[in-house]
Amino acid sequence: MRAEIGQQPEALDRTIEALLPRVPDVERLARGTRQVLFIARGSSDNAAVYGRYLVESHTGRLATLAAPSIATTYRRRLDLSGVLAVAISQSGKTEEIVETLDWARDCGARTVAVTNGAASPLAESAEVALVTEAGDELAVPATKTYTTQLAALSVLGLGLGADADAADLRRVPDEVARLIGLTEAAGALPAIVEDLAAVPGAVVSGRGIAFGTALELALKIKEACYLHAMGLSYADLLHGPIAVVDAQTPALLVAADSGPTLPGTVALAHRVRSAGANAYGIGGGAGLAEACSAALPGPALPEWVAPLGLIVPGQILVENLARRLGVDPDVPRGLNKVTQTD
Amino acid sequence: MRAEIGQQPEALDRTIEALLPRVPDVERLARGTRQVLFIARGSSDNAAVYGRYLVESHTGRLATLAAPSIATTYRRRLDLSGVLAVAISQSGKTEEIVETLDWARDCGARTVAVTNGAASPLAESAEVALVTEAGDELAVPATKTYTTQLAALSVLGLGLGADADAADLRRVPDEVARLIGLTEAAGALPAIVEDLAAVPGAVVSGRGIAFGTALELALKIKEACYLHAMGLSYADLLHGPIAVVDAQTPALLVAADSGPTLPGTVALAHRVRSAGANAYGIGGGAGLAEACSAALPGPALPEWVAPLGLIVPGQILVENLARRLGVDPDVPRGLNKVTQTD
Repeated sequence: MRAEIGQQPEALDRTIEALLPRVPDVERLARGTRQVLFIARGSSDNAAVYGRYLVESHTGRLATLAAPSIATTYRRRLDLSGVLAVAISQSGKTEEIVETLDWARDCGARTVAVTNGAASPLAESAEVALVTEAGDELAVPATKTYTTQLAALSVLGLGLGADADAADLRRVPDEVARLIGLTEAAGALPAIVEDLAAVPGAVVSGRGIAFGTALELALKIKEACYLHAMGLSYADLLHGPIAVVDAQTPALLVAADSGPTLPGTVALAHRVRSAGANAYGIGGGAGLAEACSAALPGPALPEWVAPLGLIVPGQILVENLARRLGVDPDVPRGLNKVTQTD
Repeated sequence: MRAEIGQQPEALDRTIEALLPRVPDVERLARGTRQVLFIARGSSDNAAVYGRYLVESHTGRLATLAAPSIATTYRRRLDLSGVLAVAISQSGKTEEIVETLDWARDCGARTVAVTNGAASPLAESAEVALVTEAGDELAVPATKTYTTQLAALSVLGLGLGADADAADLRRVPDEVARLIGLTEAAGALPAIVEDLAAVPGAVVSGRGIAFGTALELALKIKEACYLHAMGLSYADLLHGPIAVVDAQTPALLVAADSGPTLPGTVALAHRVRSAGANAYGIGGGAGLAEACSAALPGPALPEWVAPLGLIVPGQILVENLARRLGVDPDVPRGLNKVTQTD
């Protein structure tokens, strides 16, 4: 896992260079569609949450997540004319995802695949395949396949007419390389690892374009550290689960260095700490760092591409925490690399 | 909370009788729309998950959940022509939800409110208001306002042409009354309460039409018992968090007594137990009960209305567990009855 975290700058660079020329293909396919429907599970589902907020906030199209069981278990047809269906799967082999994308096409949708499997059934089934260039990923917890999925979704956003500058995306690989160094040198890292090693669980929260990062960090903590991590949006946290934070249940808060959701995230840090719990920040600039008990730096990137870097300090935290807890982060119990669900 | 759990049969009966005559109003409003977009937070969001699966599996319309921050934080307009927006809020006063429904109308959607607040801003703003008849709810954890929201969503489903029989809905109040008695007499109840009092957290899982019930039960456990409860769909659980179940982290599994998702839920119980964890069933008939370490009975209702009863044994479990842990379930820490988020 550590080696693959370090391979992300190169994997991102390859993926971005390979996929930026595909923007016109996405434009052509999307012509005549009015909304996006993402189809994914696991880490790919967290990537889809990023895609969803990116598309809605930057292109003005409705973008939502599909319920695959409608296709695979209830076997019900929906009217999906005018829908651009985007299936995301690292391997491109998860049968449930392939079957749901095929169902979407049969229901009238146009189809895109985001996958690391160039010759996979998913890539072959879709009208446009955005193939990520992560290379082989051996550790069970996804790292470079996840961040390269986010890069592919940024390209999708540009193809859908996002009011954003492709040059921001080209800056990502160098910024991720810099951030890996910064995080590993951060004095806060060993202290946060020690604190988290002493608690049974944590809440992970973020909002809007950073919400998918919170979900992904919570998933990584669950699957590689066996902690009870709950990924919650800012608003959902306040509607009930705020009761769960206390001295034994800290909150991890993620945010881009700028953007409309940052003030709410800073306010949440104050609220968590006033409940007697620790708040650990990732990103969010000096404002979030000052509001938190301890913080790791985030990427110096505009909000729309910040998630491509924002998960990286979290990956390093998870890898260190797993080893501290005596877990081999490369091979957590109970999991396989390709998950088959029906 | 206990008193309000017991008021559900009457509250459901009043709500169903008041709302079934509104089916034609929903039909008229929905004419010319092709899909449903739910707007909700907290327990209402879990009700929306039921509504989403019900609409997709029984009416053939796409139904998804909105991201309110697009309206209230990013302030971005989307093209929502052809969309039926359904906002759900117990009080009808949560500003974020009122503002998001107004935004949806401005973006071209037709609008429905599901609320217990007859004269609330939400009810007054919507074109059709389905007002639940739960009466005043004083305990912070929602019980009767939640189940009556589900009843309103069943009526919404009928208005959208669900292939289902309204007579099933009329059977719900008596079945809930019977289930309260059955659950409180169940020998398994005190044993499950003792087991859960000894662990730091639990996973709660269900699939399809029962998925919202799993999320709602997890939320109740978090807000009233401060346990680290994770609500996960069957498939999402297998994509990573299955690693978290162990002797200290049991799974609660909910299912209707019949329907296409039941075999998968029974298989999940076996998988959880083979990982060395306890599995507690709610509903799912004899098949799920036999596969689990212990089980509570579920409602004898067809799958499409089963969630109106399926949460009730869970509510009773939560109320008992909170008292066993020394928490007053009526007033959990950190929460107010009307949550304001922006």
